[in-house]
Amino acid sequence: MGKTKDVFMIGVGMTRFGWQKEVLLSDLGSAACRQALNDAGITIKEVEALFCAHSFSGRVAGQRVLRYLGTTGIPVVNVENACAGGSTALHLARAAVAAGQYRTVLVLGMEQMSRGLIPPNPDNYEAAQGLTLPAKYALRARRHMALYGLTEKQLALVAVKNLSNGSLNPYAKNQTPMSLEQVLQSRMIAEPLTLYQCTGNADGAAAVVISDRPRGRSIRIRASVLGSGRYTSVKDQGMTADDELARRISKLAYEEAGLGPEDVDLAEVHDAFTIGEILAYENLGFCKVGEGGKFVEDGLSSLNGKLPVNPSGGLIARGHPLGATGVAQACEMYWQLTGQAGSRQVPGAKVGLTHTAGGATPNIGSGACVVSIFSV
Amino acid sequence: MGKTKDVFMIGVGMTRFGWQKEVLLSDLGSAACRQALNDAGITIKEVEALFCAHSFSGRVAGQRVLRYLGTTGIPVVNVENACAGGSTALHLARAAVAAGQYRTVLVLGMEQMSRGLIPPNPDNYEAAQGLTLPAKYALRARRHMALYGLTEKQLALVAVKNLSNGSLNPYAKNQTPMSLEQVLQSRMIAEPLTLYQCTGNADGAAAVVISDRPRGRSIRIRASVLGSGRYTSVKDQGMTADDELARRISKLAYEEAGLGPEDVDLAEVHDAFTIGEILAYENLGFCKVGEGGKFVEDGLSSLNGKLPVNPSGGLIARGHPLGATGVAQACEMYWQLTGQAGSRQVPGAKVGLTHTAGGATPNIGSGACVVSIFSV
Repeated sequence: MGKTKDVFMIGVGMTRFGWQKEVLLSDLGSAACRQALNDAGITIKEVEALFCAHSFSGRVAGQRVLRYLGTTGIPVVNVENACAGGSTALHLARAAVAAGQYRTVLVLGMEQMSRGLIPPNPDNYEAAQGLTLPAKYALRARRHMALYGLTEKQLALVAVKNLSNGSLNPYAKNQTPMSLEQVLQSRMIAEPLTLYQCTGNADGAAAVVISDRPRGRSIRIRASVLGSGRYTSVKDQGMTADDELARRISKLAYEEAGLGPEDVDLAEVHDAFTIGEILAYENLGFCKVGEGGKFVEDGLSSLNGKLPVNPSGGLIARGHPLGATGVAQACEMYWQLTGQAGSRQVPGAKVGLTHTAGGATPNIGSGACVVSIFSV
Repeated sequence: MGKTKDVFMIGVGMTRFGWQKEVLLSDLGSAACRQALNDAGITIKEVEALFCAHSFSGRVAGQRVLRYLGTTGIPVVNVENACAGGSTALHLARAAVAAGQYRTVLVLGMEQMSRGLIPPNPDNYEAAQGLTLPAKYALRARRHMALYGLTEKQLALVAVKNLSNGSLNPYAKNQTPMSLEQVLQSRMIAEPLTLYQCTGNADGAAAVVISDRPRGRSIRIRASVLGSGRYTSVKDQGMTADDELARRISKLAYEEAGLGPEDVDLAEVHDAFTIGEILAYENLGFCKVGEGGKFVEDGLSSLNGKLPVNPSGGLIARGHPLGATGVAQACEMYWQLTGQAGSRQVPGAKVGLTHTAGGATPNIGSGACVVSIFSV
């Protein structure tokens, strides 16, 4: 890509994630957007396009939200990329602003999962045979245990940390901290992953305003890279397709930002299951391959550690309304890098990274991975 | 937008639209993509991104198609914009190539509607009270009759023309021509719109390859503009929100292309219902407001007329698998402007326009309208 403009995040908004079956999804979406617009100090009239991520919200979901904000006639693009939908919308919005197509755009991620179970993709042969997402992550955990000696305690410590962080986050679905014992003794979902090591479905919406002009409290989007999985499982007995993907995409993101893992002050990563966060440490270059378990056990990813990961509580505490998650990660980056994260603030944070993985697709690992890098 | 690159369509592919319940949607999608890649004379390895449009295909639908084409790890963006999803994907792909983000990308539109009815959007109050799409278009027709004297015959002539064109199109769902009498005497759907004046659901996929480098038989994408409706129905007793939208977006597209309606040699427009095509003549500037009925009756939009409209047979003959339609319109443009349209060829066509409208949203008219302009 040639010379492009700098791109800023100038305001954010979010609903608390949780069960909100009684309202319409458009109510949640418009609430998040209104907050983001207010936070940026602009009105909907200044917004030139809307990028809206969701997976289960019917047709023209973003346009339905605009009814409550002002039907200004702007282009609206609805994006689906499973768990990485919100990050994909952010990626598209950033690229469009960087290219000069728009100056100020709104990114919205939303999902209302209380209204029905996730329907299976009709051609997901792996899931039909039992290789659902929890099972797949459990196999990745087992593999890590076998290869590198990851322990059940180390896995559970990810949940303990994230639930502790989530208890400081008013937007998190689960704000109740849990002890190591409570996490380990919670119901087994897919061995070795117990209940509190898995994210939960949720309703919720998150929105950010992106612009080529900084305004008030702004942070810079230094990179945002999207890619999909490359390998087939036939060749991949080690379940490493997602790892290859995260390594490849984060490498491109670091290059685009002109920064490295050593520059990152905090990260929001895709802890749909605790093993996901352990692998993220390694794939994003925060530690060496095989040392992810030690990384959390040594407290390096704790709120007061060397590199706090998921200060928001991550997917495990915040809950995971698919399309909303990536945008919620960006909201957390904004609050952290502008010093507004309250009791979960990472002191002096200047560079942050978000990582989202989505769409477990038969044979190719994740269908989407987005790594974005932000700085003050 | 600043200086951008020229963008070309270098190959296309399509499945015949119709009922294909026995195969998977990914089979249809990958078939269209393989044809498009073969047509462009490239392999999947040269493709740098996939923009995939659909409304009902579950999560990461584009990635599921890539399983059959080669899992190269490229970015995949799944786009939903109802009936205008395919055109929105084309719009995004063109903008990304114009900006230099990618050099060669694949655009896929697909839908398999045989597998279930369209679920209603939960907050579509108008449809819940009877103002479904056929009813809405019927009211627009009635309004045109009252204001300008549009006749039932003129409306039906749109279907006669499009079904005649469709009989020459091997990709059309309905390839049976109908007489004026047959169209008028077919079952009433929403007065004055009879059965053959309405498009039908279908399964199908269409794909195009877009590049910043012309190759073999190429056509140029001169403009592609996306917008949404602006007015509320409370203020809009005349049902004119969609007309305002189409006028506004086509005006921007003409400006971007540096061309006017007088330069257009053929058009593919959104004839979901016959009145849609009549209004498109007027909104796209092919004739004056109120003269759309006369335009078709005088044969000006016929295959051998001054400005052939829907030489493919349009949505009425081709069928309407939501996400696929906009891409199918682009395929027809490619075949026409490269002289490959066989017995439905518009002789000497050099400039073509596509118009897609999608997502009737309560109170704001269509949620998406895309107008694109192509030239040799």
